[in-house]
Amino acid sequence: MTKDQRPLILVTNDDGITAPGIRTLIKVMNQIGDVVVVAPDSPQSGKGHAITLDAILECNPVNIDDGDQIEYSCSGTPADCVKIAVNEILNRKPDLCVSGVNHGSNSSINVVYSGTMSAAVEAGIEGIPAIGFSLLDYSWKANFEILENHIKKIVLQVLEKGLPDGIVLNVNFPKTTEVKGIKICRQARANWVEEFDKRANPQGKEYYWLTGKFVNLDKGEDTDEHALAQDYISIVPVKFDLTAHHFIQNLNSWF
Amino acid sequence: MTKDQRPLILVTNDDGITAPGIRTLIKVMNQIGDVVVVAPDSPQSGKGHAITLDAILECNPVNIDDGDQIEYSCSGTPADCVKIAVNEILNRKPDLCVSGVNHGSNSSINVVYSGTMSAAVEAGIEGIPAIGFSLLDYSWKANFEILENHIKKIVLQVLEKGLPDGIVLNVNFPKTTEVKGIKICRQARANWVEEFDKRANPQGKEYYWLTGKFVNLDKGEDTDEHALAQDYISIVPVKFDLTAHHFIQNLNSWF
Repeated sequence: MTKDQRPLILVTNDDGITAPGIRTLIKVMNQIGDVVVVAPDSPQSGKGHAITLDAILECNPVNIDDGDQIEYSCSGTPADCVKIAVNEILNRKPDLCVSGVNHGSNSSINVVYSGTMSAAVEAGIEGIPAIGFSLLDYSWKANFEILENHIKKIVLQVLEKGLPDGIVLNVNFPKTTEVKGIKICRQARANWVEEFDKRANPQGKEYYWLTGKFVNLDKGEDTDEHALAQDYISIVPVKFDLTAHHFIQNLNSWF
Repeated sequence: MTKDQRPLILVTNDDGITAPGIRTLIKVMNQIGDVVVVAPDSPQSGKGHAITLDAILECNPVNIDDGDQIEYSCSGTPADCVKIAVNEILNRKPDLCVSGVNHGSNSSINVVYSGTMSAAVEAGIEGIPAIGFSLLDYSWKANFEILENHIKKIVLQVLEKGLPDGIVLNVNFPKTTEVKGIKICRQARANWVEEFDKRANPQGKEYYWLTGKFVNLDKGEDTDEHALAQDYISIVPVKFDLTAHHFIQNLNSWF
């Protein structure tokens, strides 16, 4: 990117292209650069890093509101959206990919289930600086407007400083009107304890709904969960080299 | 697990419960412990860590071959299978979860797209020692029999020694009849370069098939790709704390 060029920004999400969270993100990005949106045509929450190998993908231009962005609605997963954007839609590699703002938390272990973060990771894999944004409020009518300045500040820093190869950012906003600041964190060691809701259909055949309770047993004060509970914005640098390097030496003695 | 108790082993995969790869894995596990299979009723390749939040799950007892295992066929993703097994089907936490043997590679960056590895990671999140096995042969008729002794050796080591909290193993077998040995590796820094196959339907509407070419630019001799290319079995210890800890200090100076 030369100095007189506006950055090219790819925007996506996992709640679908009409979700209020992505509309806020698009609005802020329009102030910063040239924006192309390639986002799912339907909700894709919990889709993790799924990609579509066994079905066709459609990707169509749409015009959802009055902003300067160019938009495409895609039938695939968030990771598919990034792949198709980079390979079929954009003329050059974008300077940044932002995903979200997700309706609901992607802190702690939620990062592995999250379509929002998988889109950011996919961009990272393709060598594009990337950020996933999430708000700890599942409501469709959540207050995204109050996030605008924070989003702008974080994005401008990433555009200015860049991100190291292999790292993307996972940003979560607390559900509060009085954010205390930003904390750089590690991912809390927490998990979901499932509570399957077992039912019978009208013919008596059993089926399940997946539900669960989030349990955080990590008492560390350097975690995203701790920062969010104290009304701070959490930023976790996330990598997709999953190697547990510290265990290689030990494992070498096994065989 | 007490000494006179046989280990309880959960088996799953992403190619579906009838795939030859999982049938081999079940056969070997029956020699080692009490086996319960909870696996997808249809292929789930590329599903990553997707979970089913927007649809019901079915899970039904099935009897596919003559082994001692108990089996359930599940309508969900690999991660769903592990969740439903642990929470609804098994009487106690299993001593081990094995996933695979996948028809095709899950080395390098494939770990993030892999349903096979996501099942293993899901078990790891729930505190269960877990291993994903994959063979670098996509054929339905691949020779899985020659893997049996290697699988047994690796599984017995994990049962004896245990795995640290937060780590699961990603085991890939080269496509060869002459395996040279086992190498403990790091995940190679590689990626897929997509090549979308753009077509038009009979009504002239455009659609895409996702295809791609695997590109490994990582010349390291300590990677899984390098080991596999030399006909070694690769074992990568994989973690699901995605925090890039080394970048936290630098990032702290940004805000």
